[in-house]
Amino acid sequence: MKIMQVEKTLVSTNRIQEMGNRPLLVVKEKSGGRSVAVDAIGCIPGDWVICVGSSAAREAAGAKDFPSDLTIIGIIDRWEEA
Amino acid sequence: MKIMQVEKTLVSTNRIQEMGNRPLLVVKEKSGGRSVAVDAIGCIPGDWVICVGSSAAREAAGAKDFPSDLTIIGIIDRWEEA
Amino acid sequence: MKIMQVEKTLVSTNRIQEMGNRPLLVVKEKSGGRSVAVDAIGCIPGDWVICVGSSAAREAAGAKDFPSDLTIIGIIDRWEEA
Amino acid sequence: MKIMQVEKTLVSTNRIQEMGNRPLLVVKEKSGGRSVAVDAIGCIPGDWVICVGSSAAREAAGAKDFPSDLTIIGIIDRWEEA
Amino acid sequence: MKIMQVEKTLVSTNRIQEMGNRPLLVVKEKSGGRSVAVDAIGCIPGDWVICVGSSAAREAAGAKDFPSDLTIIGIIDRWEEA
Repeated sequence: MKIMQVEKTLVSTNRIQEMGNRPLLVVKEKSGGRSVAVDAIGCIPGDWVICVGSSAAREAAGAKDFPSDLTIIGIIDRWEEA
Repeated sequence: MKIMQVEKTLVSTNRIQEMGNRPLLVVKEKSGGRSVAVDAIGCIPGDWVICVGSSAAREAAGAKDFPSDLTIIGIIDRWEEA
Repeated sequence: MKIMQVEKTLVSTNRIQEMGNRPLLVVKEKSGGRSVAVDAIGCIPGDWVICVGSSAAREAAGAKDFPSDLTIIGIIDRWEEA
Repeated sequence: MKIMQVEKTLVSTNRIQEMGNRPLLVVKEKSGGRSVAVDAIGCIPGDWVICVGSSAAREAAGAKDFPSDLTIIGIIDRWEEA
Repeated sequence: MKIMQVEKTLVSTNRIQEMGNRPLLVVKEKSGGRSVAVDAIGCIPGDWVICVGSSAAREAAGAKDFPSDLTIIGIIDRWEEA
């Protein structure tokens, strides 16, 4: 899993039906690279979170056929970026 | 998921049967790297889109056995490249 | 999917039985990195091709249990490397 | 699989239910990049370990639906970083 | 698939049961990056080999639930590193 920081919400009105209206968040790696993650927890900008990728991201997002390759599965209690 | 920008259509006449005649698009990452994505939405060049990879790309493209590892699943309403 | 160029055939006599005698090709990314792909189309050196990875590479190679993580699924009609 | 070194425990109280209370560890690659792994062995900080990713990380973590994309599956008897 | 060179055997006595006592090898990419692969062929240090990753690595290692994300599936007859 990756350690990432939530930056902001991403608005995408025109999306495939399978995504429903699940919230999408822009997350940032320490190196600065941005990705989009499905939020399975309820995070706010600034939170340091654990993101799961690969096929595990689908079920973690709520269903085996959910189209996610990156899902936030936990908020880190305390993270000091070294 | 990755944030990418649609560049242009990719023509590939000689392809495996399982792809049908689904449109293929060249998409570009901020870093400049190009990939090919299956379009499940209906995009035009210039659009900023959300691309899903891994095994989720298959079903997002329409069927569990569709040979895709990168599928466009949403258009971003507004994206300003920072 | 990735855009790659076919370089040459790769000979591997000693291989696991599940691969059968499917042709293997050395393919090259623009950045110069080389990989090995299963050819599901019939390419020749110099062709610019579309390669699918992840779990989709297995079925694209002909069967769900085919041991491939990179399969050539289409030849690009015309590609000018920018 | 990747060769990584265990750095420390990661505390995440607010996590999805599917994770149970499985211990999570921060692991570090030689290059310095940090990831989070599920511990299926029982490691301590400083251990050099073998981490499996991709879909294999799920079952290695104990169940097919466990949300992991990186699981520690073995401790290396002796590793001298070259 | 990736082209890698076998470096040496990796000893890991404390491992999860699902791995059995399958031999593990340290393999090296041209760029110098090291990984660990399950040997499904029978290689010796110095061999140039074809490694399959992703979900295909599991079945190539012998069983659908084998915890591998990198499996050696063939020895290259002749490889001259360019």
